Amino acid sequence: SPLVYPQETLMGKYGEEAKLIYELQDQGGELLALRYDLTVPFARYLAMNKITNIKRYHIAKVYRRDNPAMTRGRYREFYQCDFDIAGQFDPMIPDAECLKIVHEILSDLQLGDFLIKVNDRRILNGVFAVCGIPESKFITTCSTIDKLDKLPWEEVKNEMVGEEGLSPEAADRIGEYVQLHGEHCGVEPLASFLQAGQAGPVTQGCKVHTQLAGPFQENAQGEEPVSVGSVAGGGRYDGLVGMFDPKGRKVPCVGVSIGIERIFSILEQRVKASGEKIRTTETQVLVATPQKHLVAARLKLISELWDAGIKAEMLYKKDPKLLKQLQYCEDTGIPLAAIVGEQELTDGVVKLRDVATREEVRM
Amino acid sequence: SPLVYPQETLMGKYGEEAKLIYELQDQGGELLALRYDLTVPFARYLAMNKITNIKRYHIAKVYRRDNPAMTRGRYREFYQCDFDIAGQFDPMIPDAECLKIVHEILSDLQLGDFLIKVNDRRILNGVFAVCGIPESKFITTCSTIDKLDKLPWEEVKNEMVGEEGLSPEAADRIGEYVQLHGEHCGVEPLASFLQAGQAGPVTQGCKVHTQLAGPFQENAQGEEPVSVGSVAGGGRYDGLVGMFDPKGRKVPCVGVSIGIERIFSILEQRVKASGEKIRTTETQVLVATPQKHLVAARLKLISELWDAGIKAEMLYKKDPKLLKQLQYCEDTGIPLAAIVGEQELTDGVVKLRDVATREEVRM
Repeated sequence: SPLVYPQETLMGKYGEEAKLIYELQDQGGELLALRYDLTVPFARYLAMNKITNIKRYHIAKVYRRDNPAMTRGRYREFYQCDFDIAGQFDPMIPDAECLKIVHEILSDLQLGDFLIKVNDRRILNGVFAVCGIPESKFITTCSTIDKLDKLPWEEVKNEMVGEEGLSPEAADRIGEYVQLHGEHCGVEPLASFLQAGQAGPVTQGCKVHTQLAGPFQENAQGEEPVSVGSVAGGGRYDGLVGMFDPKGRKVPCVGVSIGIERIFSILEQRVKASGEKIRTTETQVLVATPQKHLVAARLKLISELWDAGIKAEMLYKKDPKLLKQLQYCEDTGIPLAAIVGEQELTDGVVKLRDVATREEVRM
Repeated sequence: SPLVYPQETLMGKYGEEAKLIYELQDQGGELLALRYDLTVPFARYLAMNKITNIKRYHIAKVYRRDNPAMTRGRYREFYQCDFDIAGQFDPMIPDAECLKIVHEILSDLQLGDFLIKVNDRRILNGVFAVCGIPESKFITTCSTIDKLDKLPWEEVKNEMVGEEGLSPEAADRIGEYVQLHGEHCGVEPLASFLQAGQAGPVTQGCKVHTQLAGPFQENAQGEEPVSVGSVAGGGRYDGLVGMFDPKGRKVPCVGVSIGIERIFSILEQRVKASGEKIRTTETQVLVATPQKHLVAARLKLISELWDAGIKAEMLYKKDPKLLKQLQYCEDTGIPLAAIVGEQELTDGVVKLRDVATREEVRM
């Protein structure tokens, strides 16, 4: 449920206590704002608590003063799912762990093929230098290469040569690099980490790309992979903690944000397309009774099952019909029914019924 | 981290995007407020989505426009932890489940002895009727009995007889009931459920008490239990969903809120008092190297451990000293170190070291 409400929604519900409702509108002249992401709050938390070394994840809501567009996944209130590593460490080791985690998450979710784009300004600068681009043209060349997401290489090259005055040879050499997809991207710990972990998508993704904090891209499966847009993004923010510290002390940070809601909508579409029925409950057993006046027996049995760590449910009716109870299992996908009737109580047993096969055992 | 920030904390961090920061102060004339609890939002959610049957839990922050008093556990922003059962069911069955869940939570947390107070206006009315209190005096008698929390029974009785004009006989009969702590509280499914579950605290707690939505009380252990105040509370709110439904359709609801932060502070005090050291990490293995230039070997091993579902960590340094790595295990309570040196690499083994006993095995 949302966190911010029209005032009238909350008013009149709490009687005398309503005076404690937090109206932001006139909170003693304090100008307040809702959080925009989880990164700035994290950096502020580190600075305020003088924390110089931490690894954490955080799933929570953030707020945008924006016109919502549900169809394009734009909301005023939505979840972010971040993890971050803060501290003074040797270069690229925490960065590599971030990539590893993104790779694990996207693989475990079985989203299909995806591409992780890794950027480092130093690599890009190195590539430009090797290609003979003058330093004064690094930034404009950067923004031109950015257009590769939308334009073919030929057009990008034309812009470089025509508008920016690069030599065709230099442009061609850049062309070779930007079209590389490979396991050798020159960042040694990163590469060895990724190679150690696994061959495959993540190493392919380790390509030179122009975005500084590059989004991770998810491609739908198929002959010609169609991009469904970015589902994660991240990067370093070494200067942010210092902005909140009274003495400006810096804490290097690297982190990634997973677009959990976009991923959910991809998964939902996939499930809908496959026609698969998803169980909405984890309940393993429904405790049922075939006769009247047995609510106490159901309560006793369910309590024993809960104590044994078994996920059990019962209908909140005093005397439900057995058929209704079995129907409920079928509707919700509960695989087993534990039935206690008068005979079972006398014999000290339970009848366990497999809902799908209708097989029964007394035990 | 908090959700609401002074505007200046967020400003200047996002560049061009800052215009999307949600300033509540002048959001197009909409008068907004932060949520005060999780119950009203839940009821509104049910009404807006026409949900008539659901069971859920929710752990999230709520806001109070209040003067914070940290020492007394009063905050402007704090967590609530609620569970609720909504739907048209037979009387007392969902209520009993709520009590069962509270009992399980408080038992599992090993908070010590606790008392659950259960109230039902109908029981109270029944008690009053049996004791010969005229109906016109039910409400005043109720508020007088409420004072039992602070006053001894004799003073409460005097007030009943002197100020309210009850007969001493009627007051004495009430006195018998309010001092009952027992397993027979007349609410059949509730009692049988609780008896079925376990003898002990919860059944003792099933006493007649006067608060309509009574807090659950936690008593510190000892000869004379000292109350540390309420750690949970709950009750029915059958009319709330109807307030949000355009046609006033009602959905009966019952729910409980657990005072998770107060419980944490009780647990923290207990741990501090016991001098016990609490591990702040779940890491089982630190992957370590005794020589330089082995970062790739560490990355490979940690990746394998992660794939096997083992909680492993490594220092984010290229060439850390072995002593530093072992010291880190001791500081954080990581029980095992998996060491790969040049010899181990050659032999294709790993040296596993028990940090506490310093025993080592090659495997």
